[in-house]
Amino acid sequence: MDNRPIGVFDSGLGGLTVLQSCRDVMPKESFIYLGDTARYPYGTKSAETIRRYAIECAKFLEARDIKLLIVACNTASSYAIPDLVELIEVPVIGTIEPAVSKAIDASTSGRIGVIGTEATISVGVYERALHAFRPTLNVSSYSCPLFVPIVENGLFTGSVVDGIVEMHLKDLKSDNVDSLILGCTHYPFLLPSIQRFLGDGVRMITCSDAVADGTKKVLERKSAEADPTKKGGVEYFVTDEVQRFSRLGSLLLKEDIKAKKVELKAFERKT
Amino acid sequence: MDNRPIGVFDSGLGGLTVLQSCRDVMPKESFIYLGDTARYPYGTKSAETIRRYAIECAKFLEARDIKLLIVACNTASSYAIPDLVELIEVPVIGTIEPAVSKAIDASTSGRIGVIGTEATISVGVYERALHAFRPTLNVSSYSCPLFVPIVENGLFTGSVVDGIVEMHLKDLKSDNVDSLILGCTHYPFLLPSIQRFLGDGVRMITCSDAVADGTKKVLERKSAEADPTKKGGVEYFVTDEVQRFSRLGSLLLKEDIKAKKVELKAFERKT
Repeated sequence: MDNRPIGVFDSGLGGLTVLQSCRDVMPKESFIYLGDTARYPYGTKSAETIRRYAIECAKFLEARDIKLLIVACNTASSYAIPDLVELIEVPVIGTIEPAVSKAIDASTSGRIGVIGTEATISVGVYERALHAFRPTLNVSSYSCPLFVPIVENGLFTGSVVDGIVEMHLKDLKSDNVDSLILGCTHYPFLLPSIQRFLGDGVRMITCSDAVADGTKKVLERKSAEADPTKKGGVEYFVTDEVQRFSRLGSLLLKEDIKAKKVELKAFERKT
Repeated sequence: MDNRPIGVFDSGLGGLTVLQSCRDVMPKESFIYLGDTARYPYGTKSAETIRRYAIECAKFLEARDIKLLIVACNTASSYAIPDLVELIEVPVIGTIEPAVSKAIDASTSGRIGVIGTEATISVGVYERALHAFRPTLNVSSYSCPLFVPIVENGLFTGSVVDGIVEMHLKDLKSDNVDSLILGCTHYPFLLPSIQRFLGDGVRMITCSDAVADGTKKVLERKSAEADPTKKGGVEYFVTDEVQRFSRLGSLLLKEDIKAKKVELKAFERKT
């Protein structure tokens, strides 16, 4: 038994989809969520900057005595997992591996699509992970740079969303994939429009459920679950103003959330 | 005569429209351009964060011995000008005042529109400045949160752009303004679509020309122009990776630009 909280971070609101799945699957656990909103978005930034920001987020959470770290951001998961595993004492769970194994289970044709931010797609991390499992897979990857801005602006449906979905996914449509990894925690909010455009034949793989299941397994294996008689909960932190995050986060989670503002310490790697 | 460079900063690429106008009007001047791309965009961030980032950019440029500072970002101009005037030795020129006086000259009906980022519009700086000039003006202000993301993704025309323009400006259209301040340095790239949607009767006021004219006047008044026999130029700095900035910047400016990456020093206000 281990009643310490689970740390979760993302560049902004997207990681709340992962948090929500985790709470559904592990209602007795306590969570600390950090949204690095002062530096959002990560998906357009460089490898070095993404790594530095991810380490600073992880160090903040580690200092609050967490038992496990969830990197609820595909961009950070694509670049920073090796650094975090090296620098953080507790187990680190990213979004990539859980989503990849779900996609492999789901696909029958061996044609799998991956969509994500520019940073996630350009580094090819999903492609490599899929091919490591099964080298004969046919993987189609596309970046969708406008999906994050529209979600962060609360725009989930309508003709503008459908137009942006079509613009970003029209090449993918002709690749005839049977499963699609939504390789960014913001994308599930656009799922209805994406599903409509690609058709019901394409199975959607979101990271959030996969991460929640993976986290539960790790805690069980380590006998590190929280006391089942206690009540779980979440503490929210952001690096920019709290109002915007609390307002949009409450909308997304359909419950009233209150966040505190914090400053992250700069991390300098010893060379 | 003063051959020191003029410092220009923005959160990203948008300020290049201001730089371009300045170079057209003052071809003999040298410029140092800083794009704070590691922390772009500013327009969704809080007042305190925007001020801190703006001061850090300004201090970087001041340390490079500039003779004048241009804040080529409406969001930073909306929040940080008083701090910069206090903390920076050289003259500081923002985007607000120059655009406001141009709009007042242009408007005959007294109905003026302003569009900008969420941060710029919510603080009401254009409205206050317009009313300070002429209290009877009828000012309509709207934030257009998706304009910056589409421009930063190189999307200037097409049906998605037209859809986003319509979505953001449909209320403004019924306000019947005769002049519209494009209160964000990114927006001129969308000018054809905006003009088409609002009709030819609406005069478009961009900050870039106004700032260039204002800067030229300040230099003349101070007899601080560069030696007319010398060749002007620009040195580019960014806070994130150089490739993306250089590639998109070269596209926008239609010339090959090379940027260097720098880290900004944290600024802490003495209390």
